[in-house]
Amino acid sequence: MNIGTKRASITRTTIQRLPELASHDKEVLHSIIDEAFVCHIAFVSGEDVHCIPTAHWRTGDFFYIHGANGSRMIKALSEGAAVSVAITLIDGLVLARAAFNHSMNYRSVVIYGHFEVIQGREEKLVAFDMFMEKIARGRKDEVRPGNAKELAATSLLRLSLDEAAVKVSNTIPSDKAADIDRPIWTGVLPLAIARKPPICADSGSNLIIPDYVQHWTDR
Amino acid sequence: MNIGTKRASITRTTIQRLPELASHDKEVLHSIIDEAFVCHIAFVSGEDVHCIPTAHWRTGDFFYIHGANGSRMIKALSEGAAVSVAITLIDGLVLARAAFNHSMNYRSVVIYGHFEVIQGREEKLVAFDMFMEKIARGRKDEVRPGNAKELAATSLLRLSLDEAAVKVSNTIPSDKAADIDRPIWTGVLPLAIARKPPICADSGSNLIIPDYVQHWTDR
Repeated sequence: MNIGTKRASITRTTIQRLPELASHDKEVLHSIIDEAFVCHIAFVSGEDVHCIPTAHWRTGDFFYIHGANGSRMIKALSEGAAVSVAITLIDGLVLARAAFNHSMNYRSVVIYGHFEVIQGREEKLVAFDMFMEKIARGRKDEVRPGNAKELAATSLLRLSLDEAAVKVSNTIPSDKAADIDRPIWTGVLPLAIARKPPICADSGSNLIIPDYVQHWTDR
Repeated sequence: MNIGTKRASITRTTIQRLPELASHDKEVLHSIIDEAFVCHIAFVSGEDVHCIPTAHWRTGDFFYIHGANGSRMIKALSEGAAVSVAITLIDGLVLARAAFNHSMNYRSVVIYGHFEVIQGREEKLVAFDMFMEKIARGRKDEVRPGNAKELAATSLLRLSLDEAAVKVSNTIPSDKAADIDRPIWTGVLPLAIARKPPICADSGSNLIIPDYVQHWTDR
């Protein structure tokens, strides 16, 4: 599928395998990006293709990453390397009666384009605040904000969501009629992101426990 | 880090950012691959770089994927496209007292190389059995195995783990001395893969519930 403007190439975001799983809903696109803590970025640098995981966040129709100025990926992307960025959430293993009909439930996004570097100090501060809001809502007002040196050492890059493909598989097992009577358990083994009890690194203190820590495992 | 033979290029698997997080332990490499249900594959096809998620499994020092013969990725990889394959497990959000010192705990693998196509019918059956063993131990003996037509329609590809980089971050927050007294909660919000209660798709039957279903949430 293809969300957004017409300058996107149709071919590379057209879902070719199982096109019935393509989603054209912008809210689905946004929710997948927002739920995931990590994306994978494919790019070419020199002779090699690379696939590198990194944290990401979203504001409106832009996808953000950050990194140390000197890193290979940040350098390549800052120089305009074409990228493909994938975000994948695995929701379950689908156990059919025939080996061939096993599958997975998942929600995935693949974005194509070029990152642009955001240079302005104010723009960077606002964007990093949004990242903190994703991780721990309200914490941006409690931490020491980045100082000039830290901000200068950190690159902020932004990618438009104009050219994004969304694919969602949310099924129960589907077997052929000839396999239906096979006496074997069939169903879904669900998977999700688990939030485990917080680990405090400064237990000696009598600090207030913020909401995002207290309710971490409820989310 | 660089596991295995010397024909691997040193530069592209040498951990340049935070080299102290590089792991040289083959068991760590294997355990990350085995715990994850999905990998991301970067490759170039035509004009474009792609990042595509897919299921994977491992046997010994080989990494396996499969897919429909006609898919763009399977075609490109079968024709010998260079790949970078990333497997990432996110273990937690590390909340420091300064915005800049926040980080994530993770375990990641990046493999470089070229996939080879496995053609033999027996080899394919054995490899697909290993995949099933990863998903649900023992189920390979219960399902209807792939027939000739299904096997022929499915490509099996294998990648050597010779050239793999492993990076593990497992830390508590680290702040500068000047930030230590800031009165703010600091610690780790742990993340993991959650196994939720199985969903049976054939509840009318009186089938035996296999161990891998009964104990799914205990793992």
